[in-house]
Amino acid sequence: MQIIGEKINGTRKRVAQAIAERDATFVKKLATKQAEAGVNWLDVNAGTHPNQEPDDLVWLVETVQSVVDTPLCLDIVNPASLSAAFPVINKTPMINSINGEPERLERVLPIVAEHKCQVIALAMDDKHVPASGEKRMEIIHKMMVETRAVGIPDSDVYIDPLSMTVATNTNNALITLDTIRAIRQAYPDAHITMGLSNTSFGLPARSYINRTFLTLAIQAGLDCAILDPLDREIQAAILTTELLLGQDRRCLNYVRASRKGVFG
Amino acid sequence: MQIIGEKINGTRKRVAQAIAERDATFVKKLATKQAEAGVNWLDVNAGTHPNQEPDDLVWLVETVQSVVDTPLCLDIVNPASLSAAFPVINKTPMINSINGEPERLERVLPIVAEHKCQVIALAMDDKHVPASGEKRMEIIHKMMVETRAVGIPDSDVYIDPLSMTVATNTNNALITLDTIRAIRQAYPDAHITMGLSNTSFGLPARSYINRTFLTLAIQAGLDCAILDPLDREIQAAILTTELLLGQDRRCLNYVRASRKGVFG
Repeated sequence: MQIIGEKINGTRKRVAQAIAERDATFVKKLATKQAEAGVNWLDVNAGTHPNQEPDDLVWLVETVQSVVDTPLCLDIVNPASLSAAFPVINKTPMINSINGEPERLERVLPIVAEHKCQVIALAMDDKHVPASGEKRMEIIHKMMVETRAVGIPDSDVYIDPLSMTVATNTNNALITLDTIRAIRQAYPDAHITMGLSNTSFGLPARSYINRTFLTLAIQAGLDCAILDPLDREIQAAILTTELLLGQDRRCLNYVRASRKGVFG
Repeated sequence: MQIIGEKINGTRKRVAQAIAERDATFVKKLATKQAEAGVNWLDVNAGTHPNQEPDDLVWLVETVQSVVDTPLCLDIVNPASLSAAFPVINKTPMINSINGEPERLERVLPIVAEHKCQVIALAMDDKHVPASGEKRMEIIHKMMVETRAVGIPDSDVYIDPLSMTVATNTNNALITLDTIRAIRQAYPDAHITMGLSNTSFGLPARSYINRTFLTLAIQAGLDCAILDPLDREIQAAILTTELLLGQDRRCLNYVRASRKGVFG
């Protein structure tokens, strides 16, 4: 299981404030803590102002890189931010994200191909997430034609099936799980990633829903997730699920984590 | 999801003592608490002395029935205990259990058929649990030939795929999950039940393993379990898994349980 740490996200009020005030101490702390938790990438999202994004992203990248050497996942609205960030970035980043929108594919994919980045591909068109798994797969097929056309190997593509809350339709999690299975079958070399929290939107005790959904999604074929690596219950769910699915040789990760106090 | 409450089990020291001393207060409390938690059956197991079992079981049945009207699951070693218990029992019980042993099938199945009981069918021969799912399915196929031969409908059979600890073989949970899927496919009308705790034997933080295994098993097709209904984390796992698998209409069970404080 690969983990993208979600906490440096400028759409959250406290992080947006830190970015606006160039509060490096706050951002460094989020970076260090997540890196210590063993994430594979640190998501960096500069917030919701497209014109401001290139400058803010460069500051975020430099700030984070000053304390950790974890690869970054550049979570951008404006493709121009990529051109701004690449000159200052130390390690090949993951790009978050492309979707079915032709203009975005056209602007982002050549950069991904040139720099041999990983890229997250959202199963949505522009701003619309199709209700059915079949329609999401149609978008995924189109995106995979484009990524292959520019020479991006499937193993660098992290497909996100997307998930909507079960509060409005109790089939929504099932649709996502079915989509994960369909992706795994159609693109065995691609990775599958997801943010967890949409599924529980509007419901109480969301952490229970998020961690249980993660377990179900791993069984369906998910092998990466964007999440809060400091949430011990989420870490416990991952370790336990991997243990039960035969992915933890001699139970070593599980037993070590237990000794470190991850559980209970 | 159907639940068999596991707590009145004479193989546990404290319960064995209560049976030996005819401590009705203790047994009644276990019965009442589990019934209040909403179980579908109360397992009653009179312990490990086959010759003593008929008398002990009759006492247990009468004691439990004096406080609750939940159906019982007669968990017996000695088939003679069934003949002793039937005259005093109020509601048609579930019988726990048959396995591939011909003598046991011969003695127990006619009673199950005559009284139209439900019956738990363990995927094992005598005392041996096959290592592979294929071998377990062979035993299950043989048992289903026998249950059908005496006219027991598949919907009264609760097949137990059995589970061994992942501590000795990290594929053990996967084998059980695969067996659940194979049972669901071969016998769509049968139920599938399981005790959870073997899977975590010998490992730390067992409750995490048990509840996560339950989530994975429900996704694979499990629709009944023998468990501790007073364990809030297990209850939370069931509610959350059913919510995510589209089995909780309008999220009502989940939201109600949250208001009652099941979560967190």
